Amino acid sequence: MKNRVYNFAAGPSMLADEVLSELHEEFFNYHDSGMAVMEMSHRSKGYLEIFEDAKARLKRIMEVPDDYEIFFMHGGATAQFAAVPMNLLKKKADYIITGNFSRKAAQEASKFGEVNIVYDGKENDYSRIPSSEELNLSEDADYVHLCSNNTIYGTEWKKYPDTGATPLIADMSSDILSRRIDMSDFGLIYAGAQKNIGIAGIAVVIIRKDLIIEADPKTPQIMDYALTLKNDSMLNTPSTYAIYVLGKVLKWIEEIGGIKEIERRNIEKAGLLYDYLDSQSFYQPHAEKDSRSLMNVTFRTANEELDAKFVSEAAKLGLCNLKGHRLVKGIRASIYNAMPIEGVKKLVEFMDEFARENG
Amino acid sequence: MKNRVYNFAAGPSMLADEVLSELHEEFFNYHDSGMAVMEMSHRSKGYLEIFEDAKARLKRIMEVPDDYEIFFMHGGATAQFAAVPMNLLKKKADYIITGNFSRKAAQEASKFGEVNIVYDGKENDYSRIPSSEELNLSEDADYVHLCSNNTIYGTEWKKYPDTGATPLIADMSSDILSRRIDMSDFGLIYAGAQKNIGIAGIAVVIIRKDLIIEADPKTPQIMDYALTLKNDSMLNTPSTYAIYVLGKVLKWIEEIGGIKEIERRNIEKAGLLYDYLDSQSFYQPHAEKDSRSLMNVTFRTANEELDAKFVSEAAKLGLCNLKGHRLVKGIRASIYNAMPIEGVKKLVEFMDEFARENG
Repeated sequence: MKNRVYNFAAGPSMLADEVLSELHEEFFNYHDSGMAVMEMSHRSKGYLEIFEDAKARLKRIMEVPDDYEIFFMHGGATAQFAAVPMNLLKKKADYIITGNFSRKAAQEASKFGEVNIVYDGKENDYSRIPSSEELNLSEDADYVHLCSNNTIYGTEWKKYPDTGATPLIADMSSDILSRRIDMSDFGLIYAGAQKNIGIAGIAVVIIRKDLIIEADPKTPQIMDYALTLKNDSMLNTPSTYAIYVLGKVLKWIEEIGGIKEIERRNIEKAGLLYDYLDSQSFYQPHAEKDSRSLMNVTFRTANEELDAKFVSEAAKLGLCNLKGHRLVKGIRASIYNAMPIEGVKKLVEFMDEFARENG
Repeated sequence: MKNRVYNFAAGPSMLADEVLSELHEEFFNYHDSGMAVMEMSHRSKGYLEIFEDAKARLKRIMEVPDDYEIFFMHGGATAQFAAVPMNLLKKKADYIITGNFSRKAAQEASKFGEVNIVYDGKENDYSRIPSSEELNLSEDADYVHLCSNNTIYGTEWKKYPDTGATPLIADMSSDILSRRIDMSDFGLIYAGAQKNIGIAGIAVVIIRKDLIIEADPKTPQIMDYALTLKNDSMLNTPSTYAIYVLGKVLKWIEEIGGIKEIERRNIEKAGLLYDYLDSQSFYQPHAEKDSRSLMNVTFRTANEELDAKFVSEAAKLGLCNLKGHRLVKGIRASIYNAMPIEGVKKLVEFMDEFARENG
């Protein structure tokens, strides 16, 4: 594919060349149907095959146990910030704040019940993930909520807290399918698709069946888990094209060797960047060593002017969208599943060159 | 474009060849950005241009007055069934039931306040639109809600009721941009995009600014109109690709001559079908004459067996998805903006042939 840049955006973000090529090839006339996928009725046989295929692949790749359900829902993770408490918060929920999105999730939940902040990393500028000992978990919470990877700060959970009989819920928007997880550690996980598994507009929700109970009476239908189950994610017209793209991403993951191979690649890619960062003193990493994210690598130079120069010069070489989030500033390289290792190598080369020229 | 069928589905439905061609052409490398639109950050300069262009075109085509706001929201019309009452229903709202979707809207609204059903066409099997005299409008309703076109039954409002100072709200999912309307007749209109203006997953909302007030405290953020205004429809990552497709559909409408030309074409297309239906007795139209929809033409043969034979034989000729909705049965031809007149002519020819062979 010609003239492609390496897109380090935090999301929406890169899709694998193989995925884009298949979308392009099938664009006008999907499997001799005489129509584009985006024109297909969600109730048609052809589209239902696409839908079921995506679901089956996700179940296979993530080894989702049979006592869990998979939903494709509207509105990304932010919709789930409300849907989770509307469906599951009956009395009290524990929220662990390790960054901006987990705080937003907690704020949204507080509309629907008592929210207990069991940890807030504000004092260390969200540069690390807490240990289990730092969490003041409640005895009687309906669930414990965390964000598995903090896109903005570049931190990621390595070992999830043991919450006993209390269901653990994770927003995995920025690291779903980037590494192996044991689904049975969780009561529910959700993820907006636009970082690691597709395009913006949908969220994947995987929920243990016994947690699907009666929602708050004021829950909008499209956010009601019991109704979503009853209608197999087709209470209304789903985001048909976004689900099709998700299926193509999942197909690509299976074809390159599944989640094990994806994890190997991600460790290799992030390793190149962190090894380089640890070998020099021109750039300062933001996240503490044992909390470093495989997906978002955050660092900065000596000052904001140099950061800006870095971002602008990198862009000229086709290394795009490296500007850090305004809450952290500095530089951020988002290296989701679809970022090839060549992009990371080119970035490390550029970093080294830039350091020598400006150090 | 080769091997295209005429897709008469009620939605998701056809896109114009010109729209699909542009999407295909720009697929890999949008305007030399080195990335596909579906990979672009919603905050990037390139994507913001796409977003603003779509909004500006919609404002221009629909002649939206300056005291109205345009939102692009998640989840289609069903999300608005909840969002409208969560934002606007403070005491009581009047709902006019002319079909399945207006009933669903009323049911959803009843979670959030008092819903007054001012008309229900059940007794005539939703075969017509009521006159103003048949509506028992309240004196003190927060708004009056109707569905402008009933996809399932094939009826459409020709003249909207005068609700005085009470805002009129319309679900225009199946006839938005199909004919001229005077936006100032409405306080708010909304439409899922997947029938006349794009692909599934988003809703367009056009709202008079003074109606944007404080929402119910339990309103999910992504459904809160005041927050949507404050964040210019980017409270969270919007459905970036669906908004891009919407922009392409709007561009196509402007290029062929705007809403006036679209309306002329739609009257011509529906006229062919209705003139034929009125000229024979093999098929019985469902909708009463003065309530007939320009978008969904519903009719049936003498029995369900013949209906099924019709649908199946038509499909062999590339006239697809003509099966009526299960609530009405029979046959339905959805002829939204993107259906070319050639498709309608071919359908009428087939209808005539089928009638002669089976009459």
